[in-house]
Amino acid sequence: MPTKRLGKNTMQFAAPVYLTGYAAVAGQKEAEGPLTAFFDFASDDDTFGQKSWEQSESIMQQKAVELALGKTAIKAADIDYLFAGDLLNQCAASHYGLRELGMKFFGLYGACSTMAEGLIMAAAYIDGGFADNCLAVTSSHYASAERQFRLPIEFGSQRTPTAQWTVTGAGAVLAQNAAPVGAPTQLPGEQLATKQAVITRATVGRMCDMGITDANNMGSAMAPAVVSTLLDFFTDTGTNQNAYDLIVTGDLGRVGADLVLELMGREGYDLRPIYNDCGLMIYDCDSQDVHAGGSGCGCSAVVLTSHILPRIQSGQLNNVLFIGTGALLGSNNVLQGDTIPGIAHLVHLTGN
Amino acid sequence: MPTKRLGKNTMQFAAPVYLTGYAAVAGQKEAEGPLTAFFDFASDDDTFGQKSWEQSESIMQQKAVELALGKTAIKAADIDYLFAGDLLNQCAASHYGLRELGMKFFGLYGACSTMAEGLIMAAAYIDGGFADNCLAVTSSHYASAERQFRLPIEFGSQRTPTAQWTVTGAGAVLAQNAAPVGAPTQLPGEQLATKQAVITRATVGRMCDMGITDANNMGSAMAPAVVSTLLDFFTDTGTNQNAYDLIVTGDLGRVGADLVLELMGREGYDLRPIYNDCGLMIYDCDSQDVHAGGSGCGCSAVVLTSHILPRIQSGQLNNVLFIGTGALLGSNNVLQGDTIPGIAHLVHLTGN
Repeated sequence: MPTKRLGKNTMQFAAPVYLTGYAAVAGQKEAEGPLTAFFDFASDDDTFGQKSWEQSESIMQQKAVELALGKTAIKAADIDYLFAGDLLNQCAASHYGLRELGMKFFGLYGACSTMAEGLIMAAAYIDGGFADNCLAVTSSHYASAERQFRLPIEFGSQRTPTAQWTVTGAGAVLAQNAAPVGAPTQLPGEQLATKQAVITRATVGRMCDMGITDANNMGSAMAPAVVSTLLDFFTDTGTNQNAYDLIVTGDLGRVGADLVLELMGREGYDLRPIYNDCGLMIYDCDSQDVHAGGSGCGCSAVVLTSHILPRIQSGQLNNVLFIGTGALLGSNNVLQGDTIPGIAHLVHLTGN
Repeated sequence: MPTKRLGKNTMQFAAPVYLTGYAAVAGQKEAEGPLTAFFDFASDDDTFGQKSWEQSESIMQQKAVELALGKTAIKAADIDYLFAGDLLNQCAASHYGLRELGMKFFGLYGACSTMAEGLIMAAAYIDGGFADNCLAVTSSHYASAERQFRLPIEFGSQRTPTAQWTVTGAGAVLAQNAAPVGAPTQLPGEQLATKQAVITRATVGRMCDMGITDANNMGSAMAPAVVSTLLDFFTDTGTNQNAYDLIVTGDLGRVGADLVLELMGREGYDLRPIYNDCGLMIYDCDSQDVHAGGSGCGCSAVVLTSHILPRIQSGQLNNVLFIGTGALLGSNNVLQGDTIPGIAHLVHLTGN
């Protein structure tokens, strides 16, 4: 068997895992942001035609799956395993959104790192020989997240400068053990795909808890986890930032992103030329009143599926480290005075 | 590569995955039940020395891991991947209980099916070539679950006859790619192990929703998922109940267990001689006032690690289908009038 491990902490897939179909579904505020042209679907009013915000979020996941599969020759019945989760209590958006698909289902909870966690799972099950086709799906919704994690929106509480804005959006990615045959994929913006986006390596994160207790400062809680995972990956691969044309974190926002640059700088890695954060990409942070930037499972899922994967397929990006970040706080535990563990899962994406 | 799939829905591992260390931690009511002699640790007062029920539940997971590893030569640093989840919002028991272990961590949400989901993950990562040693961990706590899913205990609401009692307990299982060398394991009750318990096959479930809306009747919501998964497994393996000496579900309780027997009977399979449910095994249901039986992630985790795995290692059981069952309800969705999707993951355990 070809070796599937690199160093102590990195998975190296024996064969490339192809990301052949993907879709981004987004809300109204996201559609007013800089990535609007690249979404597969955006809602005018964030309800997606539903009566509750929880149901709206479920419908986003359903729609993302439908749109992702619609770009491929793969049907729901061809999917071997579906990996999904979200921020709602009991991961309700995934269960209620995807229950009718009839797919073999693994529920994940990685907070905002769920898209990266799902991609790693999909790649491991395919490369492990258990599956040909897997789906990774996740979502978040501003209104369902606010009332669950913070305060009723109607309460109109003041947001702190470190607070982030939960992205209303869902992403679905189809992973396959082979590249599709036939005509090249049409990308958003009328481009044609010249390459396939593939997963070649992954590094799973460890929980890091540096004692942050402020649930309005998730970026700081997650930044040390990014550093831990990135150092593991650089060590295992013998590479540094110069080998990549984009290193992108999930939803650290301005505060967390600055911390990553500073902490990695202290370790001797200057990430500035190639680093970005999905929470800073999805909104125009200066004009859209989102304070420190975007967050939520939907943040990295939407930026990945609307912006990063198309740019890999068009040849603009060749070597990307996509690092999903999760604040694993328990909402009750934080009220009890406990701190916020963070986690970061890294997926190495290349153009093939 | 040897084939790792059997039929359309079953994973068949190329090499046995050994369950070499495991531990059951339980609460006071559980220690008054029929399995008390087999627990590795039981609390006198369910607090486990903590100030909140959420913290108590976290400590149970920590203790289960410590006790499971303590029975083996494996240390925390040798663990490749840790798979864990629980019933608390944001899977808080796992995050706060396991954050200090420093292990690469995958968060799962499978509701009460989490132990089976974790075992399947551990086996897939080992057999897929990504890991040598994996841990699967889960828990539930009566007091943290009641206040999250139902009503404050102090409210003293009347329980319905179909209601189940959430087990206070945690289980941890170490899965390895090889059997341990050295002296045979000491089992609870002073027996020595004559065999190793191994995972040979697994069938992942699909969500089934038959329209149950009563959150006090989870057994009925989960029973159809058991039937779906068991039929997939019987079809793929060309076997029936006669090939197994125990088919055991996670936490259907009396109502759900009776439904499984009836529904499987209609399909032509008489499970009665070899069927049981962990929710009926962990308590003396007639005398312990638990209504329809036990439930919660801890239910199947504790019965597996205190009763089923030791009996496989002692040679009393040789061929077991362990079926984790989960009610994937969203607590908000049920209040909004939505129904309860169920899921069931099957793990085929044998004595090797």
